[in-house]
Amino acid sequence: MGLTTRLTRSFDLTHPILSAPMANAAGGALAGAVTQAGGLGLIGGAYGDPTWIAGEFAKAGNRAVGCGLITWNLAGRPEILSQVLSHQPAALMLSFGDPAPFAAQIAAAGVPLIVQVQSLRDARRAADVGAQVIVAQGSEAGGHGQSRATMSLVPEVADAMARAHPEVIVLAAGGIADGRGLAAALMLGAEGVVIGSRFWASAEALVAPDMLAAAMQANGDDTIRSTVMDVARRLNWPDRYTCRVLRNAFTDRWHEDLDGLIAVAESEAVKWGAAWEVGDPQAANTFVGEAVGLIETVRPAGDLISEIAAQAEALLGGGWRR
Amino acid sequence: MGLTTRLTRSFDLTHPILSAPMANAAGGALAGAVTQAGGLGLIGGAYGDPTWIAGEFAKAGNRAVGCGLITWNLAGRPEILSQVLSHQPAALMLSFGDPAPFAAQIAAAGVPLIVQVQSLRDARRAADVGAQVIVAQGSEAGGHGQSRATMSLVPEVADAMARAHPEVIVLAAGGIADGRGLAAALMLGAEGVVIGSRFWASAEALVAPDMLAAAMQANGDDTIRSTVMDVARRLNWPDRYTCRVLRNAFTDRWHEDLDGLIAVAESEAVKWGAAWEVGDPQAANTFVGEAVGLIETVRPAGDLISEIAAQAEALLGGGWRR
Repeated sequence: MGLTTRLTRSFDLTHPILSAPMANAAGGALAGAVTQAGGLGLIGGAYGDPTWIAGEFAKAGNRAVGCGLITWNLAGRPEILSQVLSHQPAALMLSFGDPAPFAAQIAAAGVPLIVQVQSLRDARRAADVGAQVIVAQGSEAGGHGQSRATMSLVPEVADAMARAHPEVIVLAAGGIADGRGLAAALMLGAEGVVIGSRFWASAEALVAPDMLAAAMQANGDDTIRSTVMDVARRLNWPDRYTCRVLRNAFTDRWHEDLDGLIAVAESEAVKWGAAWEVGDPQAANTFVGEAVGLIETVRPAGDLISEIAAQAEALLGGGWRR
Repeated sequence: MGLTTRLTRSFDLTHPILSAPMANAAGGALAGAVTQAGGLGLIGGAYGDPTWIAGEFAKAGNRAVGCGLITWNLAGRPEILSQVLSHQPAALMLSFGDPAPFAAQIAAAGVPLIVQVQSLRDARRAADVGAQVIVAQGSEAGGHGQSRATMSLVPEVADAMARAHPEVIVLAAGGIADGRGLAAALMLGAEGVVIGSRFWASAEALVAPDMLAAAMQANGDDTIRSTVMDVARRLNWPDRYTCRVLRNAFTDRWHEDLDGLIAVAESEAVKWGAAWEVGDPQAANTFVGEAVGLIETVRPAGDLISEIAAQAEALLGGGWRR
């Protein structure tokens, strides 16, 4: 009977799996492949480059894909949201900031609003402003996030929604890369998952080869939450968000010396940018989560969807017993 | 058929649940009640006070209970381990440090060795020195720990053990307070769980009333990992370990000003100690994990064991579908 939840029914999915809208890495090819395989693919709209986003929607073809945007970055730039909504996304995900100023425009466009949160407080806020889906993201996730971890955040958000907003669908994110994580998320009270790193290491993702190679060699002990990459990119992320990446020469040099980095930020930004352009995993950063330790090979996204769902179904059918 | 695993078979348990050996809070009454209810209770031996430990083993009566000790604290103090082993514990759990120097003595006493770890690297080390059970503890846990979170650490450790040490039993800890967490842990590849905060808030735990009241009011957003309480207690914890507690006036004052605290550590230690003696949740610290947000009432430990197991069984039987 498959893993049917309110998520699969609401979005007409075969499997309760979304691919995370990872900045740079999650283009239209990945999102389209995930949707094609019965999940819901999200383009990583990130900071809102209109040309890139339009191109990636085109690459997704006629498959229904969503898009994710960084919430704090939308303030004062309403054209970004309008441009993304013009592509009629299957869903719009807002992450990292207060969604309140943008909810009405998204609702008026008839687009389902997914809000990703990292705390109970932000989950309540998202539900209050009308999110249909809330993603409870734990600190083990790659890229930006906060400190709470998936294992307790998900059931706590699920309880809060059951009490005050039973119509809201809760998903889990952070640390999930296989059917074990999907099955665990369903046990915790989520009705589906958002998976990042596992799709980052897919054939369709837009990832530099040397960074991919570095990640395939890494285990989960090899990542770190830091802000050094945002200083180096001159991005004004709010203080409460840190970003998980592979530890490397750059984080080793600067993570404990943030003031030193800020003092030379202009020249370091030039070096970081040049390293990013060539995909250098030591001088720029590789944006993956702790689940990198569960990933050994690069696979087609559609195969990953099938395998994750099948493994979760087998476990939930009793396959965990031994 | 119950939640039978290699853990329940090896230790003759009804339910795959251990109570964490929480310093101060986990005495013989709690450990005995957990064992009585079909789990395995562990006395919090902590830094190894022989009089306290002997008294708590006596309070557990004739029920088979284990004991936990802080590994780094055993260095140069072999009498602590000998004293605990003299009580013939059902298991000995070592946490926070290299178990290698102590494994042989524990094996010679015929006592099963459980090692709690917070990284893949330490899990491999524990298996290499002969641990029969490895507890993969995520950062969401209360008390001391490290940065990796439960959701990805558990399956990664399970995979590593399946490859190199298939005889080792892997348990999950961190963020687990109900049947959802137990069921999720089994999906992740664990064969049982170690639960702290939920038993900290049990009728049998040794906890100051005002701290218990503060925890019952808190949610999971209200905790913090810090080292301020160890400075205030003059405890020489290795740098890599931080400790999760409820945020309060003390952590608000000092968490971002550790050098300032160190400068006045002697006088602050006196104040902290006096506040601890009277159980003041603002001037001393309340040692609970993120799962505090899943806990609403203080309950008898035996009832908790039955309810957690029953909820997990119901979920694994299909109760998650909706």
